[in-house]
Parts: sequence; structure tokens; C-alpha cells
Amino acid sequence: MAHGGGGRMTERLIEDVFLPAFVGAELGRRHDGAYLPELQRRLAVTTDCFVVKPLLFPGGSIGSLAVHGTVNDLAMCGARPLYLTAGFVLEEGLEIALLRRVVTDMAAAARESGVEIITADTKVVERGKGDGVYINTTGIGECLIGEAGPWRAEPGDAVIVSGDLGRHGIAILSVREGIEFSTRIESDAMALWPAVSALIAAGIEIHCLRDLTRGGLSSALNEIARARGVEINIDEATIPISEPVRGACEFLGLDPLYVANEGRFCVIVPGGEAPRAVGVLKSTGLALDARVIGALCEGRSRVVMKTRIGGRRIVDMLSGEQLPRIC
Amino acid sequence: MAHGGGGRMTERLIEDVFLPAFVGAELGRRHDGAYLPELQRRLAVTTDCFVVKPLLFPGGSIGSLAVHGTVNDLAMCGARPLYLTAGFVLEEGLEIALLRRVVTDMAAAARESGVEIITADTKVVERGKGDGVYINTTGIGECLIGEAGPWRAEPGDAVIVSGDLGRHGIAILSVREGIEFSTRIESDAMALWPAVSALIAAGIEIHCLRDLTRGGLSSALNEIARARGVEINIDEATIPISEPVRGACEFLGLDPLYVANEGRFCVIVPGGEAPRAVGVLKSTGLALDARVIGALCEGRSRVVMKTRIGGRRIVDMLSGEQLPRIC
Repeated sequence: MAHGGGGRMTERLIEDVFLPAFVGAELGRRHDGAYLPELQRRLAVTTDCFVVKPLLFPGGSIGSLAVHGTVNDLAMCGARPLYLTAGFVLEEGLEIALLRRVVTDMAAAARESGVEIITADTKVVERGKGDGVYINTTGIGECLIGEAGPWRAEPGDAVIVSGDLGRHGIAILSVREGIEFSTRIESDAMALWPAVSALIAAGIEIHCLRDLTRGGLSSALNEIARARGVEINIDEATIPISEPVRGACEFLGLDPLYVANEGRFCVIVPGGEAPRAVGVLKSTGLALDARVIGALCEGRSRVVMKTRIGGRRIVDMLSGEQLPRIC
Repeated sequence: MAHGGGGRMTERLIEDVFLPAFVGAELGRRHDGAYLPELQRRLAVTTDCFVVKPLLFPGGSIGSLAVHGTVNDLAMCGARPLYLTAGFVLEEGLEIALLRRVVTDMAAAARESGVEIITADTKVVERGKGDGVYINTTGIGECLIGEAGPWRAEPGDAVIVSGDLGRHGIAILSVREGIEFSTRIESDAMALWPAVSALIAAGIEIHCLRDLTRGGLSSALNEIARARGVEINIDEATIPISEPVRGACEFLGLDPLYVANEGRFCVIVPGGEAPRAVGVLKSTGLALDARVIGALCEGRSRVVMKTRIGGRRIVDMLSGEQLPRIC
């Protein structure tokens, strides 16, 4: 508890664990806040809390996830991620070695994503109250395109997904429930800005970007359909899902359209731009399974899927909780 | 738990509780992030997690505290608070009425402080894991002065405190431990920007600002002394502490120099500017007890106090934990 008291133990924790990992000029100054340099472009801001359980999972940890989740939300605003703040709620008794691992992962993910962690805060709560560590990250990025969002989606637009779905959720579940699948399924968690920036650099007209996190593809598309008042038609046969994930979902009774991803997004572009957009995504090497899975049309605010056997069904928002503490 | 799943229940929570309170154009758009308007000045950024226990206390709640704590850190950067992000970790079973109270307090404090809550995130953790609600706020402000910080403090500078010390910590403790004092002691939590902006408007040369939160006056001054490599001499007789707080501290065996405040700061200015700075602070009506309590001099990185009985003692950083979960 004394590590959170604001006195000498807090200072030691900062100096021993956080500062060596987060080597940034601003953080090193040890002020209550950080000063940003002059910025030319308009800014986007996003915030996210991370409570994933377990803290370590195949393909990442709460540390890397806390970076990827937030830089990805910036990417979904068409903004290049520049700065992150980090807030930690630590549980009394958390092993320092585990904290160090989380912080190291976080620093590595930040470095790879090209963002600087500019200011941070740490609180400590009693044993049993905090579940190891919760992290908040808030991101600031510079907008490279005009505003993209559901309000710009139009009938006639195509829906593209950037890759196969469901790996993050299944990876978490396999560790949490101690399930061994014949193929080890790793989280898809990764930074999405490189793929988005390739679309921007190619001059693709981007109407809306949305990452497919909590609630999966179905929630993302439903949110867009409702926000814009359009119908979204998707084709089940085109939705990329790997065989191991498909098998795991069948075994567990989960619908992969509702399983969370941490390194997948959908992008909505004018129909005529779609083939080129898919080509650009594939060319980055980061979205080899990118493909068009549907289109927007006039209609009611809903998502309708043509099934593999030729029927049509409404894909509703996630109702209730499929898999808690996924991010 | 379903309120955190990212599906329909999450949407309902957002629409029923958060959106009605946080009426801002950006939040209402329901995107993953917020776009800021073009800003002319340099920005300061700060982040803070709030885990105060109990959630409601005399003079505020975790909701108002989460606003004041962060806008005050911006003020300590000499920056006018403009925007806040809000991240919530909710415990399963938290009463919606209590959440509504917290969110309403937060919205009121934001309105009074002139900041807009531009984007937010909610996670839910299992019963027993989250202690009601934890809040992270990250603040963005525009700098109205050049950088102020410990690195600008100089020997010969005066140390001014903005008001009486210790009320926040004692208010929290009285509720938590069920102690009744003859006088009800209310938290001093309040926004500090109006007082800081008055100093700026008056043209006072501000070298360093620091709010006196966790670890109290002693930790703030020790941090400055160490960061700058100077000795800070303070005079016990000049330090403003109300009689009820002094009595409570004696009763509880606490040193008021280490008790947390949430609406008090110290400002370091050139010695010659000090009387005018005190006058400006008093004139705002928000810092009636403002006064000079000490000065910086060449020496070792430490804080030395002239006691009431004429002795001298080193005021060290808080060692261990005087009062956990204070903010």
C-alpha cells in the first residue's frame, strides 16, 4: 500500500520500474503533467481502460494491449498516434516482476507503434480489490484525413474487414478456461495504424473506420448501421475466420461474429474504391486476409447476413455478455 | 457484467447514465475518439487515476474529485483546462443510483471548471474486484505561460501556499473511520485554475506550481528540492492549518504537513514578487489564507523547518503510508 502513498515508496516504484521502461524526455522531467511540442495538425483524442484477465495471454499482455487498444482507436479516427498517457491501478501484493513484465511489454508496444508515453499515474488498492493491475491509456494523435465516422457512411459503400476474426477472444478464453486446442491460437493484437496509413497514402476515400473489439464484428456494424440509419448486408461466405478459430467457436458454442479482436478493423469506402483498398491493405503485409464482406444500402438500421446455406438472418448486437474481461 | 460486454447493455448504460450527464457535442457523436478543434497554443497533458474510498465524502465525491484532481494538474502546468477524457472501471453490482450520483458530480465539476468531457470508456469487473468505481481522467489544457516546473525554481525564491492544509485527508478519514469531530471538516477539493489564472493575469513571474495532494506539503516541497538541488526553508508558525484540522491531527497522531489536500497548491516566485502574489491570490476570494511560508536557498536537496519553539528539523518525504486511498 505504501507504494501508492505518494511518498518515498511511490518514488522508488517510479524510479525502479516505470522510468527505466518509459524513457521519454517528458516523463523524465517528473512534473505533474507533460508539455507537448507545437503541433500543426488537428488532434484526435481517445481513452480506454484495460481490465483483461489473465494479465498475460498468448500473443500479448495487458501491457501491450493497453498500447494497441488506444493507438488503434486513434487510427480509427484517421489519426497518426503520437502520445500516450498511462494510469495504473495496482493491487497490493502484485509481484514486482509481473509489473515489470507488463511495463516492459507496454514500452515495447509503444516503441513499435511510434508513440511516446508522456505522463503517468499510479495508485495502489488493497489486496483483493484490484485484480493485479488495471491500466488506462489515453492517446493523442494528429489527423491525417478529414473526419471519418459513421456519419459519412453512404448506401453503396463497401464494407472491408482487415483480416481473420476471433483470435483475440479465443486466445484469452483458452488460457482462462485452461482449454488446449490442437493448434495454439494467438491473439491478433497489433497496431493498426500502418494499415490505415497505407490506405491514406494511396488516396483511398475513407468514410468510416472501426476496430472490431468488444462485441466483435456484429457490434461494430450494428453501431454504424444505427448511427447512420442504413442497412448493412454482409455475406457469411466471405467473412475470414481461420479453421482453428472456427473449430474452437463450435466447440465452445460461440458465434465468431461476436468474439472480440484487438488487431482487426473494418473500413467503409465507396463501392468503386473497394478493390483497390483491398489491394492496398494486402500490400502492407499486415492484412493478408483483407476482403470485402458486404455493402451498405437504404433500409432499416440493421445488419443482415446472407448465410452459407443461402438464407438471410438479422445479425443483432451482442445481448448480454459472451466473454467478460476481454480487454 | 453484461454492462461491460460492448453490446446492448453497454449501449443502454451509456445512453441512460453517461450521455445525459456529459452533454458535449463530441461525446454525443459516439465515435471511438474525439476530434479537437484547431488550437493555437501549446498543450499540456496530464493523467490521474482515482480510487478514493469512500466514494462519497464531506465536500465531494470520487466524481468531482476526478475532475478537480486533473484540472488542477493542468493548472500546475500553467495551462487553462480545456478537455477531459473519462475512463470508468465499474464493479459488478454497483448501484446505478450511486453511479448516477458520481457521474452527475463529475459533470457539475466539469461545467464549473470550464472543461468538456470529450470521450469516455467503461469496463465492468466482477463483484469484489473493483471497489465500486475507479475513474481515470486525462486532461488537455492550453499553456498560458512558458514552462513552469521545479527546474525553474531558484535560490532566493519564495514559497507561497494557497490556503489552510489537511482538510481533504481529514474529511476522508473521518468518514472512513466513523470519527465525529466537534466541527465537521469538509474536503478542500476545488479547481485551482481561477487562482492560477489570476497570478498569470497579474503578470507574476511563476517559477513552479505544485498541488499538495498525496504526501501533502512535505512531499511536494521535497520533490522540488530534489529535482532542483536546492534547500527549502519553511517556518512552521506561518503554515496555515485550521484549528479543527490541527485538533483532529493531534487526536489521530497525524502530521498535517503529510496530509493530502485536493484544493491547495504552492507557488514558487522570485522573493520580490511574493507580497504582490499573495495579494493577488487573496483578491480572488479563493485563497484567503494564502501566505509566504518559506524560501529557497543554496544547500543540500532537502526541506528544513524552523519549528514553533525555535528549533530546526528536517522535513523528510512521506515514508510508508499515512492514509491510503485518499484520491
